[in-house]
Amino acid sequence: MTTTTPRPGSRDRLLDAAAELFYREGTGTGIDALCRAAGVSKRSMYQLFGSKDEVLAAALERQQPGLEARLLPGPGEPEAPRARILYVFERLADAADSADFQGCPFLAAQVELKDPGHPASVVAARSKERMADFFRAEAGRGGAARPDLLARQLMVVYDGASVRAGVGVERLGDGLAADTAAALLDAAGVTA
Amino acid sequence: MTTTTPRPGSRDRLLDAAAELFYREGTGTGIDALCRAAGVSKRSMYQLFGSKDEVLAAALERQQPGLEARLLPGPGEPEAPRARILYVFERLADAADSADFQGCPFLAAQVELKDPGHPASVVAARSKERMADFFRAEAGRGGAARPDLLARQLMVVYDGASVRAGVGVERLGDGLAADTAAALLDAAGVTA
Repeated sequence: MTTTTPRPGSRDRLLDAAAELFYREGTGTGIDALCRAAGVSKRSMYQLFGSKDEVLAAALERQQPGLEARLLPGPGEPEAPRARILYVFERLADAADSADFQGCPFLAAQVELKDPGHPASVVAARSKERMADFFRAEAGRGGAARPDLLARQLMVVYDGASVRAGVGVERLGDGLAADTAAALLDAAGVTA
Repeated sequence: MTTTTPRPGSRDRLLDAAAELFYREGTGTGIDALCRAAGVSKRSMYQLFGSKDEVLAAALERQQPGLEARLLPGPGEPEAPRARILYVFERLADAADSADFQGCPFLAAQVELKDPGHPASVVAARSKERMADFFRAEAGRGGAARPDLLARQLMVVYDGASVRAGVGVERLGDGLAADTAAALLDAAGVTA
C-alpha cells in the first residue's frame, strides 16, 4: 500500500530539516515544526523513526562526516603534527565567521539535552572523542610529553572558543583559537 | 485588596525555583512547571514579572553575586596575580566535582536561548564580561604583554573546561583547567 509507506527521500528531508532546525532553534523544537519544515507527515515520521530523540540522534550522526571533513586536515595537508593541529583551529575560525554560526552542533545538543545518556548526547560525545583522538595521535607524533593531556587541553580550547563565538561574546577572526592552541603546543614541546 | 497582591516572598520563591529549574531542565521549562515549583500562582507571577523571559533574566541576575563570591578571590586571598587567576580555575574544579554540576548557568542560558539580544543572554554576557575584567586586571598587574589577549584566552579555557565538564565528557579533578591556564600564564610571562 503506497499510502502506508513514506515517500522516497522522506528520511533525508527529515534529517536535513532536523539538522537545520535543531541547530538554529534548539533541541526543544517540536515534531510538528520539524515535519512541517521537512514536508513529511507525522505518520511518515513515526514510520521512519521511533521518536523525536531518534531523529535528533540520527540528524547529528549524519552531520558528523561532513563536519569532520571540513575541520580535520586530509592526509598530508599539511604534514607536520603542529600544523595539522592548528589547521583545526583555523577552520573553526573560518566557520565562526559565518553569520549563522552558533557554535558546535554536537556541544549545543549536549548542553541543551542535559542528559549524557540521551541517544543524541551519545552521538555528540562520540564526535568529540573522534576529534580528541585526532589531537592525541598528532600530539604523540609531534613528540608531546603527555599526548593525552595535550589532547584534553586542545579540546577545552576548541569547545571554549567555539561556544563563546557561537553565543556571540567572542570573535575568532584574529586567530584567538589557533594562538591559544599554539601556546599549549609550545608548552608541550610540539614545535613541528 | 490582599487577593490581588502577590504574597510576600513570592518573588524570591519564583526566582529560586527559576534558577534551579532552568539550570537543571533548561530554559525551555514552562511557566506552569515554574509556578508549581515555586508555589506561586500564574496570576501572581504575571503581577511580578512581565514574561517568562523576565523571570529568567532576573533569576540569572540574582545568581551573579553568589557565583562571583564563590569563583573570584577576595582582596589579598591570595595576593599575587598569577595565584589569583589560578584560584578561579581551582574553584571551577571544585564546583565541577558536585554531582549536580551542569556547567556555567550563564553560558548554558546563552547556548539555549540562541539570541544574544534576549534579556537573559544580556545578563549572562555581562557576567562573562565581569570575569574577563577580573582576568584582564590581574594579567595587567602580573605584567602580561597583552592583558586583553590573555584574558580572552583564559575565558576560552574557563568556558571550555566548564562546558565540557558540565555535559559529562571531561573531569577537572586532576587540575586540567588550572594547568591549562598556567601554561597560558607562562606563555604570557605572568610568573607571579
